[in-house]
Parts: sequence; C-alpha cells; structure tokens
Amino acid sequence: MLKGKVLIAQGGGPTAVINQSLVGAILESRKFPGVEHVYGALHGVSGIVNEDFLDLTRETDANLEAVGATPCSALGSTRDKPDQKYCEEISRVLKAHDIGTFFYIGGNDSSDAARLVAEHAQKTSHDLTCIHIPKTIDNDLMVNDHTPGFPSAAKFVSSAFAGVNQDNAALKGVYVGVVMGRHAGFMTAAAAGGRTYNDDGPHLIYLPERTFNTKQFVSDVKKVYDRLGRCIVAVSEGIHDTKGTPIISKLMKTVEKDAHGNIQLSGTGALADVLCDEIKAKTSISRVRGDTFGYLQRSFLGCVSDIDQVEAREVGAKAAQFAHFSGKKHGTVTIHRVGNYAVEYKLSKITDVAAKTKVMSANMINKEGNNITPKFMEYLTPLLGSNMPTVSRLDTSNKVKKILNKN
Amino acid sequence: MLKGKVLIAQGGGPTAVINQSLVGAILESRKFPGVEHVYGALHGVSGIVNEDFLDLTRETDANLEAVGATPCSALGSTRDKPDQKYCEEISRVLKAHDIGTFFYIGGNDSSDAARLVAEHAQKTSHDLTCIHIPKTIDNDLMVNDHTPGFPSAAKFVSSAFAGVNQDNAALKGVYVGVVMGRHAGFMTAAAAGGRTYNDDGPHLIYLPERTFNTKQFVSDVKKVYDRLGRCIVAVSEGIHDTKGTPIISKLMKTVEKDAHGNIQLSGTGALADVLCDEIKAKTSISRVRGDTFGYLQRSFLGCVSDIDQVEAREVGAKAAQFAHFSGKKHGTVTIHRVGNYAVEYKLSKITDVAAKTKVMSANMINKEGNNITPKFMEYLTPLLGSNMPTVSRLDTSNKVKKILNKN
Repeated sequence: MLKGKVLIAQGGGPTAVINQSLVGAILESRKFPGVEHVYGALHGVSGIVNEDFLDLTRETDANLEAVGATPCSALGSTRDKPDQKYCEEISRVLKAHDIGTFFYIGGNDSSDAARLVAEHAQKTSHDLTCIHIPKTIDNDLMVNDHTPGFPSAAKFVSSAFAGVNQDNAALKGVYVGVVMGRHAGFMTAAAAGGRTYNDDGPHLIYLPERTFNTKQFVSDVKKVYDRLGRCIVAVSEGIHDTKGTPIISKLMKTVEKDAHGNIQLSGTGALADVLCDEIKAKTSISRVRGDTFGYLQRSFLGCVSDIDQVEAREVGAKAAQFAHFSGKKHGTVTIHRVGNYAVEYKLSKITDVAAKTKVMSANMINKEGNNITPKFMEYLTPLLGSNMPTVSRLDTSNKVKKILNKN
Repeated sequence: MLKGKVLIAQGGGPTAVINQSLVGAILESRKFPGVEHVYGALHGVSGIVNEDFLDLTRETDANLEAVGATPCSALGSTRDKPDQKYCEEISRVLKAHDIGTFFYIGGNDSSDAARLVAEHAQKTSHDLTCIHIPKTIDNDLMVNDHTPGFPSAAKFVSSAFAGVNQDNAALKGVYVGVVMGRHAGFMTAAAAGGRTYNDDGPHLIYLPERTFNTKQFVSDVKKVYDRLGRCIVAVSEGIHDTKGTPIISKLMKTVEKDAHGNIQLSGTGALADVLCDEIKAKTSISRVRGDTFGYLQRSFLGCVSDIDQVEAREVGAKAAQFAHFSGKKHGTVTIHRVGNYAVEYKLSKITDVAAKTKVMSANMINKEGNNITPKFMEYLTPLLGSNMPTVSRLDTSNKVKKILNKN
C-alpha cells in the first residue's frame, strides 16, 4: 500500500521522455490519500546517500506537466553503482526520513541498483517497497517489448537519416553516421525508419549483434556506390571484431571507463572519422563524410514520439498503482505489446531485468549482417508515433529531351 | 517579362527550406500566361551543361507542396564553379532550349555563378534574364538581413543546445558542441537560442569573427566549471588563430578542398575531439564530451522554423515577380527586416552579394569574444518562429531538511 513518504529518483543516461515517467509517478502517488509527501532525490542514488531531496509535493500540476514535456532527467542523474556499503547508507537515509516506497527510473544499471537496494532491504528486514521504472534509449531491457525513451530516440535517428538521405542525394558521395548503442543495435537499426523510396538510404546498417569486418564493410560500400553513385551507412558505436573488441577501442589512444566498467563510446567523433578514412584509402571515392550523432540522440528538444510520451507517463503511474495494489514489495514495470498496436503493463521480477541486456532478435537482421529485415520495420513503425514528417521527390520521369546530346 | 521557358536550378549546400523557394518560383512563374514551360536543371549548373532537365510544368500542385516541405535540394545540387568556358557551355545549352529566364537558388558561391552567367550573357548579347534566389544556413549573404535556411538551421542548433543543456545538468561535466559556419558565426551564435534560465548553457560561444586562443579557451572553461560544476561550449568549425589558420587544419593530417578552394570542415569529428583532449590535458575535469553536429544541421527532417518556410517560399515567388515586372535583366532577391517583426523583399544587384561574405556585426559579440550580446538575441528570436518548444525545471527551493547531515 502506498502511504507516508514516497521517494523517486532517476538514474543513467537521460531520455526525451524520462520526465514523463517522473511526473506520472508523482501525480499518481499523490492520488492515494495515505501519501503525505513525494520526495525526489537529486542525481539518483547519490542524492539519497547525500540526503539531497526535493519535496515534489510542493510542485503544481502545471509546472509538473511542463517538466514532463522537457527532455532529460529533471532530478539529475548519476552513474553510481551501489555496492554493499552504499546500500547500507541508502537504507540508513531512507529510514531516517521514514520513506516507505522508492521508485527508481532507469535502464540496465539502474535496475540493478534497484535490485541491490531491494535485496538489502529484504535481508535487513527493512520495510521498503522498491519498484524500478524502465527507461533507456538503447531499448535493451529484458522482458519489455520496448522501453520508454527508445521510440523518441528512434524518431531522432530516423529523422536524421531521412534528412541525410536527401542531402546525400543532392550532393552525392558516401556518408557514415555513427549511432549510440553499445550492445543492442535497436537505435542504429532505427535509421531504416527514415526510408521512403526504394533507393533511399541508409543502404547499409551495421549492428553490434554481428561481427564487424572492415574489409567486408568497404566492399559493401563500394558495391552500393557503384550501383547508385552514393551510399549511406548507419553504424552502431558498439561494432566489434570477432574477438568482441570494440572497433573504436582499437583506434583510440586512451579508453575512458565509467563506474560500471563501460568504455566511453559516445562524446567522440573518432569512429566515424576512421571508417571514412578506411573508405577513402581503399576505394577511389572522393566525397566521403561521417557524423557521430552523439548526445543529440537522447536530448534534442522537440523530437518526441507521441506514443513514447504516453507510455513513459504510464509506466510511472503504473509503478504507483502496483506499489499500492499488487501486494508485492519489489518489482519492475514492464511493457508488453498486444495486437497491432497496443500495450499492457505488468509488474515483473527485478531479477529478470537487472543488469541483463536484450539484443535484437535474429529475424530482425538480414543474412549478410549489413541491414535489417521487414520484421524489424513491423516492430519499429508504430513506435515512431503519429507525427513522423514525410518526404517527397520530383517526378524524374518528366525528362526533357536533349537537343545538343553532347555526351 | 516572364515568357517561354523558365529554368530553375539549386546550388551549394542543401537547407531545410530550399525546396520552398523552388516551389515558390515554379508556381509563381506558371501564373504568367506567357510561360510555356518551367524546367529544372538536375545538380545545379552541372545539369545545365549536361542538358539534364526535368519539365516541372508536369508536376501537380499537390506533389510540389509535398516536395516544398521536404528538406534539401529536390533537383540535386553541385559545387561546380563556372569559368569562362563553362559559361559558354551554359549559354549554348540555354539558347538550344530557347530558355529566356534562369533562376539560381544558392549561397555565396552560387550567387557568384549567377553573376558569371549574367555577365557572360550581357557580354555576348544573349537575351537572358538571370536572377539569384538566396539560401544558405551560414546566413552570410551581404545586403540580406538574413537568408532562407538560416532560421531553420538556427532552430536546430538552438534545440540541440537546449537539450544538451538539460543532459549536462543531469550528468555534469564539460560539453563542447562544434557547429557549422566557416567565416560567419551566426549558426554557432544561435546556440544561445536554447537558453531559458540564467545558468543555462551554452556558457561560452566561440565564433570565427574573433581569434581563438586555446589557452584562453581552457581558462574560460575552467572558470565556468568552477562556478557551476559544469560548462557547455558552442564552437564554430571555422575558429582560427591570429594568422587566420583554421584550428582544425592545424590538427588534421590531410586537408580536403572543394572546387571553390574551401577546406572541408564538416563531416569530421576531429575538432570537437581535440578541444576535449585539450581540456582533459590542462584541467582536472574528468567528464569532458564533444559532439560535431555535422550534416544534421542543414537536413534534419521536421526541424523547420515556420517563419523560414514562409520567407523561403516568398523569395522564390518574388524572383518570378521581379523577372516579370521589374524591367531588369539581372539581380538577386534580398530580404530586409522592417519593424518587429516583418520583412520586405527587393531586387538587388548581384555584384553586391556575389562571392562576398557577411559576418556578425561587432555589437552582437561580447567584449571577451566568448559569448553573444542581447543585441544578437533580439536579432535571432523572431527568426526561430512560433513553434520553438520550451523547457521547464523543478522548483529547487523546495529542499527537504537533512536529518543525518553526514557531510
């Protein structure tokens, strides 16, 4: 049952709709008469151990709605990964402030933090309800059909490649766009959402679910270029060789790691540059350009899937509902697709999600490992929402007969 | 007078609204009863010499409207810069096809191409009307208050930095975003359009109008970081040292140049990476991230200023009007700001615009050369249009009193 004080925090990388989940959890919690205060911890679990709390009960609905529509974590975030001692500190603070319910909005690492906090509470007979609320642009949480944040990020990637495709058709050449996604290729695969006509790019898509072979890559690019006079490539930042070594870590002088031991893949343009250099060196193609999409993918103001907004709000509100009615102390809210297209929400076991990684299923990737299948488009299309812009082209069959015929 | 056959082409880098100008010119031209055909040259002037024409008279209004709303050059573009021989070829083809009017949509280089074609016609007594229609995201055409394409690109940069600001507030550190703009800093300065609250980034803005000093840059970043615990920097790709040498060309192994002799600044993430390395090396700040915005700035699907759309359409339509009514053979359509906010359009001399570069005026840049002034915001704000999304934050004054007070 929801009562007394409820605490909410946000962890990991921000998304375009993570604040919808925050607002959903706040507003739904406050509807239960036993709930006196809803607190927010600043910068995730680190804000708990530092007692950095805001009293969100003092927020008006109007401002909460405005914050909900704002991208990124309004409470701030953290990459901290609690260990045993950290959990003891969290427990001590929660007890001191008499907090009975903790909602943690986050991805794989945050769900594992929620698991640790929940298990520590159980072990120490601390009467705490701990529910994980899903979010991650990477779309790599187990059990979930997809995760809040992914549809909007996918819309960004689709919109970017749809524009790049037009640009590249106007000024021909090779274009390599590097997309976020360490282990799961969903974000990179979403580049295909920007295709309209049969010859639209991206013409090649390289995912971390498959081994990346530089020689094969150059040969693939050359083949497309020879056919169309241009070639657009979507590449996941997480591409790796047969040994599992990321292509980027082969090329970087220093490799930066976070507290979770993850190599820093974003915030550097190195991968796109090196892949472009490779094409220039091994082919005679002169115009080769590369971009690394970087942080814009998860934060760009105004690029939001309406489906994503609704679902992100729902998982927050459902967490409050499950905390009150499910009779369970711990769990993670999960999204399940039903029909075409609707979803339902369940309270699943945290251990089924925590620190696990879902990748693209084999039937979403083509045999050659350099493109997606119609199965993936079937999966992606409803997620992009109702407001994807469209592209059109002039009718190129209306050619004017040449008079001079100089060539 | 507009009659017979009209030819339209698009040159230089694509923009989000260049097709609005194309559609404006086509539809307006067709209203004059003497106009039999409107042709479009594929890939700019190169399509003229190759006789690659589409008969745009065969396009329906519905498809033209759909194309107008699509980013990038629907006819394709070129970086070709005509010389004397090239102009003779153009002249020969135009005469063979009995084309009396030529509209060339483009930026500095394209306006210079239009000038060459016009001058060649004059010299050879070729009865040709040649009007340049402005577009460039760089906003660097003389005479014009601003140029079609810039407002939408500025909206992209504003939206990107507004999002990055939220992201960086959630996970603190230093962020360097590299923005297009070789000689003029308008695009980079537009990063300021994403600020809402007083402590919002970008906190520092480096423009090609000022000399870039790496030591001063690092010191500026450190100062902001010490004050706010974070720092967001917008940097123009065209920053250069006291000798005018671009910072990027100091760092790149090979420098690529186009037909106009311009060094390739976009399509590589090198500048952001090197600036980040510099901060990491010279300070103790650990989380330093950089992005190079690249081609998304001029092509991203769905990021359009409504003011820009209207004005881009107008300059195309005005070209047809001027060709018919002005009594002048040659000219360039220019945009002039009146009141707050409206514009009027004039037919100006091509030579006042061709191959010249407008840069930001001194009163738009602060004394230290690391930020913009309120004067620039006054200039920018109406251009972003009526549909800029907003951001909101939680009320951080609602702090919960600490109980354990561990620190």
